Amino acid sequence: MTEYQIRIDKIRREMCAAGADACLITTNVNLLYTTGQVLAGYLYIPRQQEHLLFVRRPVGLTGDRVIYVRKPEEITGILDQRGIARPKSIMLEGDVIPHSEWLRYEAVFSGSTVINGTPAIRKARSIKTDFEISLFRQSGILHSGVYRKIPQLFRRGMTDVELSIEIERAMRLAGSYGIFRVFGQSMEIFVGSLLAGDNAAAPSPYDFALGGRGRHPSLPVGADNTVLREGMAVMVDMGGNFTGYMTDMTRTFSVGQLPEHACFAHQTALEIQEAAARMAVPGTVCEDIWQNALDIAARNGLKDCFMGISQQAKFVGHGVGIEINEWPILGARSQTLLEKDMMIAVEPKFVIAGVGAVGIENTFLVTASAGEKITLLDDQIVDLTA
Amino acid sequence: MTEYQIRIDKIRREMCAAGADACLITTNVNLLYTTGQVLAGYLYIPRQQEHLLFVRRPVGLTGDRVIYVRKPEEITGILDQRGIARPKSIMLEGDVIPHSEWLRYEAVFSGSTVINGTPAIRKARSIKTDFEISLFRQSGILHSGVYRKIPQLFRRGMTDVELSIEIERAMRLAGSYGIFRVFGQSMEIFVGSLLAGDNAAAPSPYDFALGGRGRHPSLPVGADNTVLREGMAVMVDMGGNFTGYMTDMTRTFSVGQLPEHACFAHQTALEIQEAAARMAVPGTVCEDIWQNALDIAARNGLKDCFMGISQQAKFVGHGVGIEINEWPILGARSQTLLEKDMMIAVEPKFVIAGVGAVGIENTFLVTASAGEKITLLDDQIVDLTA
Repeated sequence: MTEYQIRIDKIRREMCAAGADACLITTNVNLLYTTGQVLAGYLYIPRQQEHLLFVRRPVGLTGDRVIYVRKPEEITGILDQRGIARPKSIMLEGDVIPHSEWLRYEAVFSGSTVINGTPAIRKARSIKTDFEISLFRQSGILHSGVYRKIPQLFRRGMTDVELSIEIERAMRLAGSYGIFRVFGQSMEIFVGSLLAGDNAAAPSPYDFALGGRGRHPSLPVGADNTVLREGMAVMVDMGGNFTGYMTDMTRTFSVGQLPEHACFAHQTALEIQEAAARMAVPGTVCEDIWQNALDIAARNGLKDCFMGISQQAKFVGHGVGIEINEWPILGARSQTLLEKDMMIAVEPKFVIAGVGAVGIENTFLVTASAGEKITLLDDQIVDLTA
Repeated sequence: MTEYQIRIDKIRREMCAAGADACLITTNVNLLYTTGQVLAGYLYIPRQQEHLLFVRRPVGLTGDRVIYVRKPEEITGILDQRGIARPKSIMLEGDVIPHSEWLRYEAVFSGSTVINGTPAIRKARSIKTDFEISLFRQSGILHSGVYRKIPQLFRRGMTDVELSIEIERAMRLAGSYGIFRVFGQSMEIFVGSLLAGDNAAAPSPYDFALGGRGRHPSLPVGADNTVLREGMAVMVDMGGNFTGYMTDMTRTFSVGQLPEHACFAHQTALEIQEAAARMAVPGTVCEDIWQNALDIAARNGLKDCFMGISQQAKFVGHGVGIEINEWPILGARSQTLLEKDMMIAVEPKFVIAGVGAVGIENTFLVTASAGEKITLLDDQIVDLTA
């Protein structure tokens, strides 16, 4: 069975569980997941028969199951011609496609019950195939390689934006495709975020772990032109899109020495990460990882600056994949059970007033024994001036 | 009247025309347009009374009309408390928000007729305010400044990806926020595209003017690791997000001299641009600009390579704004009439087999007398080796 048949069958199993006879996939991310490429078209997955790929663009695709169409209204006629029964119920990507597109596909499949397939697809995607895991491993190596070079990119007197630009360039030269895919429309970011000093405490409209005020109200996230000064913590959290799969990785740097209470908070973040990695086995309730993180933060007197100060995130990690924020969520009220081959980012972070953000993020594979770290690089604070 | 009141009133006029009593704005781009900042929340615009801004994040916003809520379900209760009548009909951003969000807001406003407000909002946004025009002028200066430096970034033997990375860095250092906002979910791109040699002819799943195969099926657009060789055309089309508003600008570079037929095609593109600029006055039917462009291409024997070869785009320009693809579309079947203060990109391009893409793109303001060029830089082909 090919990689993409495996993935389509994972979605089929969720279709069965949800009682759907078919699924129509139309968005770039889910087409990439199921076909291995972004295209303009529609993948029709019936429960029993073979899937069909209806393509609008690009010209020139070949394959038994490729059928060119100008518009989705042609799909049902083609199904009829091929003797494929119309589905009694069909899944659409209801948490992603705009309402007007939903109405259009609903009209195409008039007579079918239309149900929201996004939860089923996200569930299927949350458990990675061996090939996907191998892409994460590749990405982890490249991502770590760039982070290792960050001290060489630092120059005294530079701003957070300037350092960020040099890291972005290094990521691109190492092979990153640049774009940062996020599920949902409300979160936007360029390559990633770099937070220096008190900018780490800026409350954000976005639902990232930490915010940063950014340089402009049109993109209020990340670096804000802070000059990097002695005693500041510099947190680098850039998205590693080297393979189509996003490794997620944060390291804390410092300009000179950080005060002892900041170093203590960093060590507490490592303790939280270690506990989360131990818990990253099948059967763990995701909320328990969050609750345990909160407990460790509280026990160390750091609850008030855990995951922010004036605005605190209510999660300590999340699934990663083609998008940065896949399932599961390691956060409050997340009753999902971890399963083997989920890929999760764990990111305990503290904001220390007058210093900046400290903490860590690594991408872990859920295995039978513990979370396996995929972003292989030392977790300690690195002094940029050393 | 403040800038944002002017913009909200533009939307109100479209609400009246569409017979809506209210509009609920919930997406980043439209919140940025109407409030001047990205936030997590809901702008409620009644037809008669003052608007209210319901905010979830960030904490700390102030203002008479700012009301913090945890969820949209609180909105109608607050309207009731304030004696604001429930709307008989309300506009939602139906071409943008996911179907499941539409259902959620529809339930919040149960009893109201819900209509798709995206066309009304896009129409309002298509005509720029004086302040928006000033932001475009700023952006045009910065964008042109980076393009002027491109020959200094070129080194013999480099690939299209490597040159692209240096231009991206120069854009960022000049102040670009990096992210490239596109209307609709089907088009994705990093900072922009650089097309060298025959990669310009690669058919694309995306609906950009030209494609490029990219480096990976997860982002099949733009540079593809082509080594820049003598005789190649190198087309640079990077998005200029320096102010929250995207100027759009393409220049053709060459490695050494291009063959005469490629230079001729470039001059034909300039002729098409000049004709389009002359037509960029209020009252022109957008399709006529497209048809005129096609006619000029045909008259010069270049119809078969206009806007692509195996796959040809059916437009020669488009509105620009917070998003790169705003209204109007200068393309087939676009019956929109140009209006004063629309901001449009005009991009006639030819693909020359064995050479690459030639042509031009500039951003123009529609004025009473002609399109005014905002991206001020010479339009001729620049030899990178000169």
